Amino acid sequence: MTMLEIIEKKKLGQELKEDEIRFFAEAAARKSVPDYQLSALLMAIRLNGMTDEETTELTLAMRDTGDVADLSSIPGIKVDKHSTGGVGDTTTLVLAPLVAACGAPVAKMSGRGLGHTGGTLDKLESIPGLRVSLTEEEFIRQVREIGVAVVGQTGTLAPADKTLYALRDVTSTVDSIPLMVSSILSKKLAAGSDAIVLDVKTGSGALMQKLEDSIRLARMMVSVGTLAGKPTLALISGMDQPLGTHVGNALEVKEAIDILSGRAGGDLREVSLTLGGHMLVLAGKAKTHGEAVAMLQQALDSGAGLRKLKEMIRAQGGDPAVCDDVNRLPQAPVKKTLLCGESGYVCGMNTMALGSAAQAMGAGRLQVGDTIDYAVGFVLRVRLGDRVEPDMPLCELHARTEEDAERAEAAIRRAIHFCAEPCERGRNFYALVSAAGVEML
Amino acid sequence: MTMLEIIEKKKLGQELKEDEIRFFAEAAARKSVPDYQLSALLMAIRLNGMTDEETTELTLAMRDTGDVADLSSIPGIKVDKHSTGGVGDTTTLVLAPLVAACGAPVAKMSGRGLGHTGGTLDKLESIPGLRVSLTEEEFIRQVREIGVAVVGQTGTLAPADKTLYALRDVTSTVDSIPLMVSSILSKKLAAGSDAIVLDVKTGSGALMQKLEDSIRLARMMVSVGTLAGKPTLALISGMDQPLGTHVGNALEVKEAIDILSGRAGGDLREVSLTLGGHMLVLAGKAKTHGEAVAMLQQALDSGAGLRKLKEMIRAQGGDPAVCDDVNRLPQAPVKKTLLCGESGYVCGMNTMALGSAAQAMGAGRLQVGDTIDYAVGFVLRVRLGDRVEPDMPLCELHARTEEDAERAEAAIRRAIHFCAEPCERGRNFYALVSAAGVEML
Repeated sequence: MTMLEIIEKKKLGQELKEDEIRFFAEAAARKSVPDYQLSALLMAIRLNGMTDEETTELTLAMRDTGDVADLSSIPGIKVDKHSTGGVGDTTTLVLAPLVAACGAPVAKMSGRGLGHTGGTLDKLESIPGLRVSLTEEEFIRQVREIGVAVVGQTGTLAPADKTLYALRDVTSTVDSIPLMVSSILSKKLAAGSDAIVLDVKTGSGALMQKLEDSIRLARMMVSVGTLAGKPTLALISGMDQPLGTHVGNALEVKEAIDILSGRAGGDLREVSLTLGGHMLVLAGKAKTHGEAVAMLQQALDSGAGLRKLKEMIRAQGGDPAVCDDVNRLPQAPVKKTLLCGESGYVCGMNTMALGSAAQAMGAGRLQVGDTIDYAVGFVLRVRLGDRVEPDMPLCELHARTEEDAERAEAAIRRAIHFCAEPCERGRNFYALVSAAGVEML
Repeated sequence: MTMLEIIEKKKLGQELKEDEIRFFAEAAARKSVPDYQLSALLMAIRLNGMTDEETTELTLAMRDTGDVADLSSIPGIKVDKHSTGGVGDTTTLVLAPLVAACGAPVAKMSGRGLGHTGGTLDKLESIPGLRVSLTEEEFIRQVREIGVAVVGQTGTLAPADKTLYALRDVTSTVDSIPLMVSSILSKKLAAGSDAIVLDVKTGSGALMQKLEDSIRLARMMVSVGTLAGKPTLALISGMDQPLGTHVGNALEVKEAIDILSGRAGGDLREVSLTLGGHMLVLAGKAKTHGEAVAMLQQALDSGAGLRKLKEMIRAQGGDPAVCDDVNRLPQAPVKKTLLCGESGYVCGMNTMALGSAAQAMGAGRLQVGDTIDYAVGFVLRVRLGDRVEPDMPLCELHARTEEDAERAEAAIRRAIHFCAEPCERGRNFYALVSAAGVEML
C-alpha cells in the first residue's frame, strides 16, 4: 500500500478501507509521508467526502495514534461535553460544577482559544494561581475526590490530528465535515469518557454558519460517536450573537460566577442548563431531561454549584475567593462605556467580528505563542431584538490602552446593526440530533 | 492575494482570475509557496476543473515563467507537432525530414522518454555522435540552413511546469485535463512556433485510454492553443497497439529509415503522412490535406526525405551513414525470435505493458538518471486482427542478456491476446479536432 494509491482512490470518489485509513493516520502522526501528499488527500476528502463508516475508522485510527486516558477507576458514567466553538460561550464553567453537584462525575479535558473563539483553559487561567496542567493521576484523583476537574490534555492525545489540523488550516480544508468530525471525536474518544454531549453552533459566530451544514456536522458526529460505541447526542445551538453578555477571559469567568451565584440569567444560563441536563440523563442521574434540568436548577438555587466551582478552583491551586469577590479577577486599566447612539432595534450582529475584536484587544492569540491578556474584552448590554435609544448603553469596554479601546469601539460598532422595525430575538436551540434522528426544536 | 485564498476559491468551484493564476504559476516556478499548498490546489483543480479561459491563462502564465524561443529570423510559418506519447511512436523522425523536404521549416524541440513511452531525443541519441543539445543560435541557424532541426529545449522553458509536474506525479493529479493541457502547451508556446498539430493518443497504450477522454483533452488543447493565438488542430489516433512494429530506441530509428527508404510501410507511415500533411497545410505549403499528403509521398518516393534526414544527422554531429546501413546503429548482443505458439487471431494488446517491457529491458528509464541502452527492444511481427499459426513469428527480441530476454518474453506473451474468432484490426484515426469542432473519422 502506498500513499499515492490512497490519494488515487479518494480522488476517484471511492471508499477507503480500514487499513488504508490507518496507514495515513499513522503516517500523519509519525510524519512519515510528505505534507504535499497529505494535503492532496485532505483536499480529495474535502471535495469527495467520506462515509460515516470511513469517518468512524479515521476517528478511531487518529485516536489510536496517541494516548487514551483510562478513567475506569472513577466510579459512575463519565459524560463529556464539547462545543464546536463560539463567542462568549462559557457553558463549561457553568455546567461542570452544576452537573458534578448533582452527582455525575465531570472529568473534562478542554482546549485553548482558536481564532475568534475563546478557550476554556485560557478562561480558567485568568483565575489567579489556577493550574490546568495535571498529570493523568492527579486528574483522576481530583475527580474521584470532588467530582469535577477541567484540565488540559493529560497526555499526547491523537497526534495525527495535530499534523492534519495544521495542514487543513493552510490548505482551505478546515470546512470538511468528515475531517471536523474525526478531529473533534478522536480527541474526545482519547479523553476516555463514556458518553458525549455535543454543542454544535450555528450562525454568524460559528464555524458552520448555515443551519443545514450544522445539522450535517451534528448527524455525522452522532453517527460516528455511536458507531465508536459511545452514546452521543448533539444540540444545535444559536451563535448569531455572543452566547453570554461577557466576552474575554476573566470577564467570562465573572459571568459564570454571576450565574452560579444567582445574580445573572440569560441565554448562557439557559444553554448551560439544557446541555447539563442532557449530560445528567446520559450519566443515569435523571430519567428525563425535565427532571435533570430541575435538579440543576436546584443545585444553582441552593448554591451547591458555586460551592463545587470553589472546590474545583481550590483543588487546582486557584484562588477560590474570586467566587465571593469577582473583583479579585484581573482588571483592565481602561474601562469605557459605549452608548447606542441611535434609536431602533438590534437586528443583527457579526458575531465572528465581535470575537475577532476581543482577540485583537488581547483576549485571544493572533498567532501561536502570543500571550493572552486575561483582563481585556467587553460586556455587551444589548441582545438581538432589543429596542434601544441613543443614550442606552451598548457595551462596556475593558481595554489595555485608550488606542485599543478606540479600535475595539470601531470594530464593535461595525459588527452590531440597528434597524427601524421590530425584529426577531436570537434563538438558543434549533435541533436535537440523536442516534434516533433529528428533532427540530 | 494569498495562496490560501486561491485554494479556497478553486475548492468552492469558482473561476480563478488571471492575476490569481499568474500568482501561483510564478510561485511554482520560484518555489515561493510550500508544496503542500500547491498540491492542495492541484487536487482542487483535478476535482473541480478549469474553464478554457482559466486553462489558457494558466498556459500563458506558465510559459511566461521561463524563456520563450524567438524563431522570427527563420523565414516561413513554423509548425510544431506534439504527441501525447505512445509506444513505437516514431512519427517525428519520419515526418520532420519529409515536411522539411517539402519546403516547410521544422524547428522542433522534443522530449525524453517518460514512463512506458519513448522519447524522440533518446531515439536520436542512439545515432552515433548525434547531439541534441544545441544553443538557440545553433538551432535557428540549422533550420535556416537545412530547414530542419530536432533538439532538446534550448533554454529553460516553463519552469513552473517542472515543479507542478513533479508534484502531480506524486499526488495522483496527472490525469487532470486542464493541467495536462497547460503543461503541454506552455512548453509548446515557449518553443516559439506559429502553429501546432497535436497527436492525441487513445487506447491501451495512451495516457487517456477512453476515446471520450481523449476528445475532451484534444478539444481543450485546440481551444487553448487557438485562444493563445496559435492555429492548432488535433488528431485523435489509435494506441491500442504500438504504432510502429519496432519498439526501442535504435530499433525505432531503423524503422524510420526503413520507411524513408521505401522499404517499409504500415501504420507508422500512414500516421506520419497524415500528421505531416496537416503541418504542410498549416505552413501554407498546400491548399488541401490531400494535396499535402501527395507532396509528402513524392518526397518519400524521390528519396528527398531520407536525404533531408541525412542532412539533419550530419548537421547535429551524427553519422549519416546509418541511413544507408542501419547495421551501423547499436546492436544488442542477444537476439531471439519468439513464435506465436498457437493458432487464431490477435485480438488485443496491452500496449502499456509492451512499453513497460521495453523499458524494463533498458530502453527506458525506471527512474530519473538511469542510463538507456539504445540497442534493446523488440520488433513485433503481428498486428491486431492478424491470423496466426503456431510456427509464425510473434516477435524478435533484442536484449542485453538471456535473462532479460526471458523476462521480456514472459511480459510480451502476457500482453498479447489471441482468440479463435476473426477480430478487428486496430484503427489509426478516430477524429480530427479543430477550432471548427470535432469531425469523427
